[in-house]
Amino acid sequence: MLGAGFGGLTFCQHFRHPSARVTLVDRTNHHLFQPLLYQVAASGLSAPDIAQPIRSILRRRNVVVLLDKVVDFDLANKRVLLEMTTQSYDYLVLALGGCTSYFGHPEWEQFAPGLKTLDDALRIRSRVLLAFEKAETVCDPEVRQKLMTIVIVGGGPTGVELAGSFAELARTVLRREFRRIDPGQARIILIEAAPVVLSHLPPDLAQSALRQLRNLGVQVRTSTRVKEIRQGEVELNDGEVIQAENILWAAGVSASPLTQRLGVELDKAGRVKVNADLSLPGHPEVFAIGDLALVLQKNGKPVPGVSPAAMQMARHVARIIDDELTPGAGRAQRSPFKYRDKGTMATIGRSAAVAMIGRLKMSGWFAWLAWLFVHLIFLIGFRNKLFVLMQWTYSYFMYRRSARIITYLPPELDAASRAPR
Amino acid sequence: MLGAGFGGLTFCQHFRHPSARVTLVDRTNHHLFQPLLYQVAASGLSAPDIAQPIRSILRRRNVVVLLDKVVDFDLANKRVLLEMTTQSYDYLVLALGGCTSYFGHPEWEQFAPGLKTLDDALRIRSRVLLAFEKAETVCDPEVRQKLMTIVIVGGGPTGVELAGSFAELARTVLRREFRRIDPGQARIILIEAAPVVLSHLPPDLAQSALRQLRNLGVQVRTSTRVKEIRQGEVELNDGEVIQAENILWAAGVSASPLTQRLGVELDKAGRVKVNADLSLPGHPEVFAIGDLALVLQKNGKPVPGVSPAAMQMARHVARIIDDELTPGAGRAQRSPFKYRDKGTMATIGRSAAVAMIGRLKMSGWFAWLAWLFVHLIFLIGFRNKLFVLMQWTYSYFMYRRSARIITYLPPELDAASRAPR
Repeated sequence: MLGAGFGGLTFCQHFRHPSARVTLVDRTNHHLFQPLLYQVAASGLSAPDIAQPIRSILRRRNVVVLLDKVVDFDLANKRVLLEMTTQSYDYLVLALGGCTSYFGHPEWEQFAPGLKTLDDALRIRSRVLLAFEKAETVCDPEVRQKLMTIVIVGGGPTGVELAGSFAELARTVLRREFRRIDPGQARIILIEAAPVVLSHLPPDLAQSALRQLRNLGVQVRTSTRVKEIRQGEVELNDGEVIQAENILWAAGVSASPLTQRLGVELDKAGRVKVNADLSLPGHPEVFAIGDLALVLQKNGKPVPGVSPAAMQMARHVARIIDDELTPGAGRAQRSPFKYRDKGTMATIGRSAAVAMIGRLKMSGWFAWLAWLFVHLIFLIGFRNKLFVLMQWTYSYFMYRRSARIITYLPPELDAASRAPR
Repeated sequence: MLGAGFGGLTFCQHFRHPSARVTLVDRTNHHLFQPLLYQVAASGLSAPDIAQPIRSILRRRNVVVLLDKVVDFDLANKRVLLEMTTQSYDYLVLALGGCTSYFGHPEWEQFAPGLKTLDDALRIRSRVLLAFEKAETVCDPEVRQKLMTIVIVGGGPTGVELAGSFAELARTVLRREFRRIDPGQARIILIEAAPVVLSHLPPDLAQSALRQLRNLGVQVRTSTRVKEIRQGEVELNDGEVIQAENILWAAGVSASPLTQRLGVELDKAGRVKVNADLSLPGHPEVFAIGDLALVLQKNGKPVPGVSPAAMQMARHVARIIDDELTPGAGRAQRSPFKYRDKGTMATIGRSAAVAMIGRLKMSGWFAWLAWLFVHLIFLIGFRNKLFVLMQWTYSYFMYRRSARIITYLPPELDAASRAPR
């Protein structure tokens, strides 16, 4: 079992074959509740609030948890090469998740970080908070304007959530605390190539999201493409150049590059074109689930890269392997995976969100409550649910952010931070 | 006003002269509740739990808060040179705090980090947790033993608190969650040059602390000196060499090196030998408070470098300046600073601590409650008190640690963490 995201964890929780030995490998020691990662970046939550040690989640399961990095696969000999050891397997489940994709512009990463790991989030938090602090010390209005500008590329759920929460951070939380600048004047610019944000939603919901974002003071540029990203500036296809201390990339996700080492057919995003039962073509003992797997639905669209899909796939694979290991049961025909869409939602800010559950469409306050509710239910671990709920209640009523701490300093400042004042 | 530690913050809160303009400069954006820093290192608390943005603490005060670094002083022209700007002053209060001192062995810092900032704490947390994760993957028993050994140099409050909480982490929290290693076998070694730990306490309390540490399974080596520290190993004066993946330095504190740029007389620890009113010799308009100032008590001993002392000094200086700015009052004779010892305490672990309040001596459970109580009272900010109390209650009853998250990876692993799994 590789990867302790939603897929990997769900598998370990549902696969209970008594005689089977399960080993779970992940390169971090924690399961990350990715849907709330943007809250850490926007200093609404602290890192431990949305992450739990994998070991403590699985401590009652018969699972060996290893912190290690996958280096390569040896499917022929049923072995996985890790950085520190080599693991043999009878069954292999790949749930390595995705990573930020720059559409053939890897050089943009250094100027426009993506948001995938806790480290990403803490780095973004520190850079954004630091920019406002710098703005308070400088006098040149142009420099100040640049420091107080955040450009977010990509109007998908992540981009929308980041834009909304940074807009709130500047307009409500920071507003009263600076003497020389007015954080309310901060520019939050969201750039989306499509004519609407959240283009996976029905038009009316997408429009409502757009309205709600603008109400928060976010400048949304739809039908706009990024031509070039340089240190501290973004060039748009219409030639305009925006000076921004912080540029965040929320435009593209692709499967872990490790899929290229599997030697099977991939799609453009690097996802494995799996069989109907989620196994690898030619390798019935190897499965790929979550953001790694390309599965087509009846309507021809691929199953979206969302956590419910990953969890459903994990349960499907757990059932298959469990059946095949049960003596006597014999190798029955494996059933194909069917994705059940539980709906989709995105939050924009304080009592602002859009949601579609089945046929039910919601926006504004109701959608926001629904979003809160659903995310709390799925947030792993008793403690986290409780604490996160309290933090939200607190910041909702007090207009405060509890995690506005600059810890993860960019290298050039990190040295300074360790030197004495 | 330089430095937003206990001294700097207390000054800003008590100095309320209407016409005066106060500027507070700190190199971080947060006030850190240092007495609980070891809890962050031992993954009991998350960084934001013990830190608050300076701005939000002071948002109702007439204070300009700047995040900047002091570079040099120009006392003759009443100016402070910062990295980004230069500040002129009528009165200057130095509260820059202290930093870890390696007794003339600065080269030891790379092998045995100290614990002064949040970054230090997060780095230590990640390194220690990572060591246990590695131990689970390796097979060589010697390597394993080294990975599971933590050496703490210095038996003062910080050293004792670190040793106690790491011992608890290994013996209670991590114990049930590993399959191949038994974290209960981890070696926590505390090295102290004096014949007792907490030598500033009366002998019977110090002895009790020693007993309580040993009950937690900490190997305490008193009357032992460190001869040499190398990558992953400590050499003692008796020639013994201890292999340890993690070596933590809690042995020495000295004043910020910036005091050397003041051109006034300092003691060995770099502290300023201030006048009775806490002003700099020859500079009545400049004050030094907190860990920066050497103030002798009646008994000839220097005022200890603890937060209550810093806060008392801050109030004293605030009063002096306020008086002198009040029209008519004229320059009355400044009163000398008198330190009122409110007692001292150190926690060792779960219901284990020692405390001396006035003449009252406590140890064990009662001392621990007292410690809890006092620290919660002084913990800045409503939210923090509440949340920290809940976290403690939670981990007390559940034997869990809520912040066991590896985020701040050592450089060599940081790269790996950002690459896809």
